[in-house]
Order: sequence, then structure tokens, then C-alpha cells
Amino acid sequence: MITLTSDFGLSDPYVAQMKAVILTIMPSATLVDITHDIDQFNIRMGAFMLASAAPYFPKGTVHLAVVDPGVGTARRAIMVQTREAFFVGPDNGLLMLAAINQGIEHVYELSNTKFMLPKVSDTFHGRDIFAPASAYLATGIAPSEFGAEVTNPIKPSFTKIKKDHCALIGEVLHIDRFGNVITNISGTEADRAKTAKVKLPKTSLNTVLSQTYAEVKPKEAIVLVGSHGFLEIALNQGSAAEAFGVNTGDTVEFRLA
Amino acid sequence: MITLTSDFGLSDPYVAQMKAVILTIMPSATLVDITHDIDQFNIRMGAFMLASAAPYFPKGTVHLAVVDPGVGTARRAIMVQTREAFFVGPDNGLLMLAAINQGIEHVYELSNTKFMLPKVSDTFHGRDIFAPASAYLATGIAPSEFGAEVTNPIKPSFTKIKKDHCALIGEVLHIDRFGNVITNISGTEADRAKTAKVKLPKTSLNTVLSQTYAEVKPKEAIVLVGSHGFLEIALNQGSAAEAFGVNTGDTVEFRLA
Amino acid sequence: MITLTSDFGLSDPYVAQMKAVILTIMPSATLVDITHDIDQFNIRMGAFMLASAAPYFPKGTVHLAVVDPGVGTARRAIMVQTREAFFVGPDNGLLMLAAINQGIEHVYELSNTKFMLPKVSDTFHGRDIFAPASAYLATGIAPSEFGAEVTNPIKPSFTKIKKDHCALIGEVLHIDRFGNVITNISGTEADRAKTAKVKLPKTSLNTVLSQTYAEVKPKEAIVLVGSHGFLEIALNQGSAAEAFGVNTGDTVEFRLA
Repeated sequence: MITLTSDFGLSDPYVAQMKAVILTIMPSATLVDITHDIDQFNIRMGAFMLASAAPYFPKGTVHLAVVDPGVGTARRAIMVQTREAFFVGPDNGLLMLAAINQGIEHVYELSNTKFMLPKVSDTFHGRDIFAPASAYLATGIAPSEFGAEVTNPIKPSFTKIKKDHCALIGEVLHIDRFGNVITNISGTEADRAKTAKVKLPKTSLNTVLSQTYAEVKPKEAIVLVGSHGFLEIALNQGSAAEAFGVNTGDTVEFRLA
Repeated sequence: MITLTSDFGLSDPYVAQMKAVILTIMPSATLVDITHDIDQFNIRMGAFMLASAAPYFPKGTVHLAVVDPGVGTARRAIMVQTREAFFVGPDNGLLMLAAINQGIEHVYELSNTKFMLPKVSDTFHGRDIFAPASAYLATGIAPSEFGAEVTNPIKPSFTKIKKDHCALIGEVLHIDRFGNVITNISGTEADRAKTAKVKLPKTSLNTVLSQTYAEVKPKEAIVLVGSHGFLEIALNQGSAAEAFGVNTGDTVEFRLA
Repeated sequence: MITLTSDFGLSDPYVAQMKAVILTIMPSATLVDITHDIDQFNIRMGAFMLASAAPYFPKGTVHLAVVDPGVGTARRAIMVQTREAFFVGPDNGLLMLAAINQGIEHVYELSNTKFMLPKVSDTFHGRDIFAPASAYLATGIAPSEFGAEVTNPIKPSFTKIKKDHCALIGEVLHIDRFGNVITNISGTEADRAKTAKVKLPKTSLNTVLSQTYAEVKPKEAIVLVGSHGFLEIALNQGSAAEAFGVNTGDTVEFRLA
């Protein structure tokens, strides 16, 4: 099984070209689109969508993702092997949020030209490098065949949280269309955040971890583990992002009682 | 074969999560999207799209549909077994238009937690209940295993038509982007409507059942069985909905000559 | 393997109906969408998208394409057999750009009703004629079974280029969202165009064939073989179409040195 995530949209034939390359190498591959509507070059948003969907796929799935403003420059092409799956794409942080959550085992550079298209363009590594690598990986080629191990993959700030006995500090990963503020703090930290003060750049909230919106009054703030598996700050029947003046990238601190 | 219909759009990872759940349970499933662009919470529109596409799928197809404003409330999760296929989704009428057209045999509640994800959220039964139920059903689990028989599924007004010797009375199901007025009266009633007066809330038309737009002059009204399999009122090269002041939900009466 | 290209969008159930028809005839078919976002009735744009994606698919792929303003008129339904693949759709030029690039072997009319749905509508040959033809073709029915050979398929101007010892003359096929001017001259002509003067309706350029945008200064024009496999005129960090006042359909002349 191979998933595809990109900022290419579906109006152009780019996604079809990637699928064609995969199916030429591995005709029996099952392809699933995660989304191709990532805002152009928005690595953080791509990382979020991938991290949200990846946990539901079967063990051994290959996740191909392309949000690649650095294509044609010296940025590396990589493959990340986790305890659950494989992630294939540019070394710009796109793959790391999902991969870290699954436990990274190895990262390899994609440098073996045997597993690329014969002609590699400067503008479309999704088709020329990542699609064939994903297909060959799915056919059973060993990860170490693709290139040298990478010890220092790029890990942007949104892949990192700070923890100590009295605080969990992360950042705003995504604001959804309802104005819910989705942080990069995984739901598995939820027990620690249960009774929390939340510090945002422009305001502080006293709240408890809720199960559903229904537990608070309209326009009241809650913290919950959302459908994406991350801690979210929401406003019942309102936009938390607007009410609290929050933007993606803002620091969020949960002070533990 | 499993189809998917929802109001989730393709920009978020929700559809991918449902597919991942299905393919984890049944890796060999063939998945086909009907559409994910239903207007949010528009049950009538979802029912229409499902009823339009379902007749073309092979016998035994499982149709998973999620337009679910009542998720998290007491509304039931159901499965409808027809003479042709299975429909899985919320008990809010979404499934019933397509199911009635195929002949309903049984309706079951989805209450057996064995066929749900281990953790069921309050906000996303598409992923947690409907997707696993659809997959288990496709693998051959007997419908009666999922829960108790339901004798009173919700049937909104758009699933009902009144017939007598001199009239067919239904309602406006959908207005397409060309302004064609699509009723909930199935094309199989077409013989009876052949020479008909059509009564709409604001106007009455004298017309005959046509095969194609080409049979009437520009801006002239016709009644035909459209591509969706329902009786439609159209205006050659114009918007019937605008010309006759029609909205979805309006009553339509075909008086038979 | 069967690909689908159309101007139907994904909000309506039309694409799902075509897929349902295909999978009813051939349940094991692998379906890949190229795009369904072709501008309505824009044959040139559909031809471009199809020609851009088709070369990446495996030998023997069936390409179903529907941009069909003439549906219901006397325009023929055809199948084109090339050295690489099959193309199924209306005889209006939509298939010919991709087919010519692969080398056309035979063109057949789709007239054998055995390979159509029992009831053929006047408005939706994609579902009633092209989808079943594609599926039967993929199951191995011989092309000549579908109907008589066609010797004069429609070839619009965008499928033709003029070549002589001192010039390559084609036209503008597509302008992408970045303003790049994509011509109908295949990248295989690139060697001849290496040192070229480009004549556009409103301006002339002196340029060389480049490999990447990075080879010229910002706002400087280049000619390159783009990701689509055609000669493109681009402006580094700008819109060539805007700068040079170019529209789709305009004549482009590469004068060879």
C-alpha cells in the first residue's frame, strides 16, 4: 500500500504522473490519496496532514509526500523507516512529524540512481525520484539499498516539544476551518495535560481536558484530543484562533497543576 | 467493492483515514469515491448523489455514506440491506432514497462494538464505526451480526412520493449547476407522467415527457428522465429553477392527463 | 489499467457512474484519475492534460477521456490504438495529441452496441459508451470488434506542427498557473530548437534552450522542455504569458540558427 500527499492539486496531471510511475514499477500497488490540497510549499501543513492520517494505515505502508520548495537545490531526498511504516520525500521536515510519532528506526538518503527514472528533472522529484523509490520499496527492496544512512535529517521546530515536570511546551501546527487551534503535542501526552493552564502569546486560559464540545457552554474554551490525535484548543460554537489571536507557529504552553 | 460519499471534502485527511481503516481490515477492497463535495450537513443532497450513482455499481457493493449533523447525539448508526447492495451510515435519511429504489430487505443497527474501532470518538463515526462496519460487511460478516433489526428507520419527506390515478406528487430533490430541477420521482414512473401538467409552487406547466433538450425551442420547458434517473424539469438553454422560482424541498405535482 | 480524464469535476456523481460501469464489466480493473478539472468543453486543455500524463503509464493502458461538447450530435465515438496504449472518447481531437505522440496504428469507430450500456442516453456517452468500451477493451476484446476502421479522425490545429530546415511552427497549447507558455512542440524536437529565435504574435525572443530556470536572471526569458514533455517559454520568476501577451492558440515559431 502506498499513500500520496502533495501540494500539486488535482487540476494538473502531476499526481497522475506519479501514480503512473508507481504502477509501472508495481502494477499491484494499492494507492490512497491523503490529500493534494496542501497550501503550496507549506511544509508544516503537509506534515500535519500526513501525521494525522498515517496512524490509521496498516503496518508496512509506504507514505510518499511531496511539498518541496527546495527541489532542484542541494536538499536531500530521503526515506524514513519507522516501527510502523516508511516515509519517502524531501529532507525538509515534511516527513518527520508523522515519523517521530511512530518511532524512527533509520533514515536513508535516496541516492541510488537505479531506483530513479532514467532522466531526473530539476523540477519534479515527486515523479522522478520519490514515486519510483516508493514503488521499489513496496516491492520489497531493502531500505539500505537506496543510499547511505542519514544521521541528521532536518527537524523543524514544529516536530519538537519541550517537557518538564511542570510544563508541556509546543507550537500551533494548524488552524482548521472551524478556527480550532491544533497543537503539535500528541494526544498521548493528554494524561499529563489533564488539568492545565494554557499559555498562548496573547492570553492565558484556565481549563480542563474535555472529551467533547458539549461539556462546556457556547463560546467557552476547551482543550481536547481532537480527531487528528493532537491536543487542540477549541471554542464551543466559535473560533478559538480568532478569539485568542492565535496563528500557526505560535508557542503554546500547558502549565501542569 | 466499497463506495464512499461524504461532506468532508478532500482537503482534510478524513477521507484518507476512513480508507485506511477499511484497507487495514480488508486489504483487497476496491474503493470508489462517489463524491466528498456534499454541502456540509446537507442530507438531502447526499441522498441524491448516492441514489444517482448506486444503481450503476455491481450487486453486493457496500455503500458507505457520511453526512452526519447528529454525530455524538442519540441518532442510530445503521446498515440497510437491499436486493442489490448494502448501505452503511447514520440513521438520518441519507441512505434511504437509494435504498428504497433498490428494495429494502432489512435494516440493522450498528451496535456490536466488535465491528468498531477500539476507541469510538464523539465526532467522527465515519472512521470509527461506519468504515470498519463497511469493511467487515465486505469481508462477508452476516448483516445480522452487527446489531438488532431496526423497524423504523428515519425516512425524510424527500424519500416519499404520493401516487394516485390522477397525480404523482413528490418534491424537488436537487437543483444542478445548470438550474435543472431534479425531483425525487424515479424515472420508472416516467410512463405514467408522459403527458402531464406540472404544478410547481409558483407556476404550472403544460408539457410532455421529452427525450432530449433538442426537442423544444430555446427557453422552453421540458420534462425528461435525466442522467440521474429522476424526473427533471429543465429549460432548454436556461435555468428552470430561476425561471419558475423553484427551491429544493418544494412540492412538485404531475397531473396525469 | 484504465485512466479517466474529463470536464465533469468531482462534485457530481458522473465520474463515479463511469467507474461503476467499468468495474461492473471488469471488477479487477485498476482505475487512475488523470484529472476531472478540465475547463468545461475545453478540448485543447483536455488533450494537453492527457498528452502530458499518458507517456508515464504502462504499455497497454486504456485511456478514457471525455470532453464532449458534441455529445448527442453526429460526432463519432472512437478508439485509437497506438504503439503503446489505447485511447477511448469522442472524435473531436481530444485523444489525438497524446495518440500522435505515441504513434497511431488504427482508429476504430465505437458502433457495436454489444459493447455499450443497454440504454444509451443523448447526454452522457462517457457512462453509456466510453466506459463500457474501455472496460471491454481492457478485458481483451479485439479493437476491430468495436466497429469499422476510421481513416479521417478529427485533428485540430493543436495536433499539428510544421517543420522545415529553418523553422518549427506550432501553437500555444496551454498556459499554466505560473504563466508558463506551453507549446504543442514535443520535447523530442528540442535538439533542433537548441539555438533558436522564438517568434510570438507580439514579440520575438533571442534565447537558447536551457535546462532549468536557474540558468537565467530573474525576469529573463528561457525556452526549456518542461515537466509536460513539450517546449515551453518561461520567464524566471515571472509570467511569460503576461510579459509577451500570449494566449492559447497563438502561433509560435522557432527559427533555427
